[in-house]
Amino acid sequence: MRVDGSAYRTVWADRGSGAVRIIDQRHLPFSFEIETLRDVASVAAAIRDMHVRGAGCIGATAGYGMWLAACESGGSQEALHRLADSLVATRPTATNLAWAVGRQLTRLAGAPADDWCRVALAEAEAIADEDVEWCRRIGEHGLRLLRSVADSKPPGEPLNILTHCNAGWLAFVDHGSATAPIYAAHRAGIPIHVWVDETRPRNQGARLTAWELAGEGVPHTVVADNAGGHLMQRGMVDLVITGTDRTTYTGDVANKIGTYLKALAAHDNAIPFYVALPSSTFDWQTADGIADIPIEERSGDELGFVEGLTDGGMVAEVAINNPGSPTANPAFDVTPARLVAGLITERGICPASEAGIAGLFPESGKSESH
Amino acid sequence: MRVDGSAYRTVWADRGSGAVRIIDQRHLPFSFEIETLRDVASVAAAIRDMHVRGAGCIGATAGYGMWLAACESGGSQEALHRLADSLVATRPTATNLAWAVGRQLTRLAGAPADDWCRVALAEAEAIADEDVEWCRRIGEHGLRLLRSVADSKPPGEPLNILTHCNAGWLAFVDHGSATAPIYAAHRAGIPIHVWVDETRPRNQGARLTAWELAGEGVPHTVVADNAGGHLMQRGMVDLVITGTDRTTYTGDVANKIGTYLKALAAHDNAIPFYVALPSSTFDWQTADGIADIPIEERSGDELGFVEGLTDGGMVAEVAINNPGSPTANPAFDVTPARLVAGLITERGICPASEAGIAGLFPESGKSESH
Repeated sequence: MRVDGSAYRTVWADRGSGAVRIIDQRHLPFSFEIETLRDVASVAAAIRDMHVRGAGCIGATAGYGMWLAACESGGSQEALHRLADSLVATRPTATNLAWAVGRQLTRLAGAPADDWCRVALAEAEAIADEDVEWCRRIGEHGLRLLRSVADSKPPGEPLNILTHCNAGWLAFVDHGSATAPIYAAHRAGIPIHVWVDETRPRNQGARLTAWELAGEGVPHTVVADNAGGHLMQRGMVDLVITGTDRTTYTGDVANKIGTYLKALAAHDNAIPFYVALPSSTFDWQTADGIADIPIEERSGDELGFVEGLTDGGMVAEVAINNPGSPTANPAFDVTPARLVAGLITERGICPASEAGIAGLFPESGKSESH
Repeated sequence: MRVDGSAYRTVWADRGSGAVRIIDQRHLPFSFEIETLRDVASVAAAIRDMHVRGAGCIGATAGYGMWLAACESGGSQEALHRLADSLVATRPTATNLAWAVGRQLTRLAGAPADDWCRVALAEAEAIADEDVEWCRRIGEHGLRLLRSVADSKPPGEPLNILTHCNAGWLAFVDHGSATAPIYAAHRAGIPIHVWVDETRPRNQGARLTAWELAGEGVPHTVVADNAGGHLMQRGMVDLVITGTDRTTYTGDVANKIGTYLKALAAHDNAIPFYVALPSSTFDWQTADGIADIPIEERSGDELGFVEGLTDGGMVAEVAINNPGSPTANPAFDVTPARLVAGLITERGICPASEAGIAGLFPESGKSESH
């Protein structure tokens, strides 16, 4: 998507220099920095230290990391696997990371060693392009939904969408999941306005989603996470769209902490609450999201310290809580399927139910067991 | 309540020096500073610039301000009213402010001018003492509720209470409203733990409520506003208690933005949601809180800038949002009566309904109209 008028992906190959380039997201929104990664160790560090984040973006970066691994390994399977392991170890719970590395290993296992470098680059591009294509389709399906809601409004009134956290193009390779329908609608000329939840404690909404939307020229307003219920009560929200970190095959949605509260408010005010996801995010093993999805407890420092710009334009961190008071920081919550109006996937929109999901993804075999 | 082991009120008279003393709340929690106010102009500045905040605390401070006004006026009704007006003008929407000033003017109208200084001090003490007594009674009634919930838990398990914003003693003269039952239960030896909502955008929970609870030695944990729904879903909250800025005679509760979201989550998880208030907070004119209570829209800078301690221990402010992105900042929301389990008042606990409230406050005459 656009940054200062130019089109970017979050990660790409610089074929000329044989390096991987990424947007170093740690510095957003205060500065836009491109980082050049010339070896596997640098890619591993970039993933581990969260220069890149988001399932799709991490997966694609790992795919490109395996390109460098293939070139570095000198044709040695042992070296290749050692480098692959070093990438997987960076963020052990990131499903897409292990998946992308595994896909490259399988591809390279069937290729002559002197062709690895070229084959791995092609596979890395394929992984990234698929991510882009899935998000593009999510945008296409979501666009039809947004158009129908917009058509039901009085002429000239913008469609008001609320989103939580960053399920934007920065979390993927391009387009994003929750943002894909928004960008598609904006480009299609549908008047649109986005309420951006700040998304404490890491402020991904106020920092990343707002930055993304500004780059694309989409009208938006940052609000405290606390404000969404009030906005819905007063008729100022037409639709909620979020992303998800994991969705059960029954339609329970694990997503950034606070998502459940917005789903409750949407339900209480008869506002449709949609979740956008590539199907790689479905958990085909878990039926009861509330009982069985483990919720990561992260450092309380994320809550107690905030980074921002000083008067003098320097980036600085300040401690904001009562000194000495304990903090807790669960990173995700689970929104039960009953509160979700539908799931926007690359294949279309389906109800958040076992039957609805199996209807779009019959190969999952989930519909057969009942 | 206790600060570093010593008992304080938020505002009091220093009779020896003829001055008003307040806790200057602007510096909390990073430093505890007592401010001495020697004239009406200083009291007015302290109210206007939010050295003190909270309905009860502002009312009591204005009461003491009128003591200084009575002494300064030299027996002139004209001077007295001019000084009174200067106090009322500081925060025009604060009901308790105008009420306390009016009460003093009425009292002084019937007193000989050479006795004003003494009479006004006695009246100021009475206003403050009444605030303390009402909050103490809220604590007493709430204690019975908390004890009954605690008794239903397995022995040794603490009672987990979630609260939003600061309806603590800092907002009154002592005890607070939502915190009064908590302090009473803690002093009665009931094992208790408080989840403290950070309360964006002004962070009154993480700054003030956490500071208060630490001073009294009440176990507590600061969480992001987003976390409450998840905690309730996982059985980690037994009861929610908040304060209120205005409650209709039908039981709709206007309170700090985000309260409604917690009430929805409590309802969805069958957790009782209580609101504590002195009866002066009832709005006897308004029936429909959602339709008819105006919601103050405050500066977006409250959302965009955060104050905290730097590495070096200095207080500094940083800008935390995507530069240039617009912000909106509604300060309150309205929780409909249907989500409120009960109201804890100085007279007892009643259902959040017109009949329930009129039952405790028959002099309101509200029950007669139906």
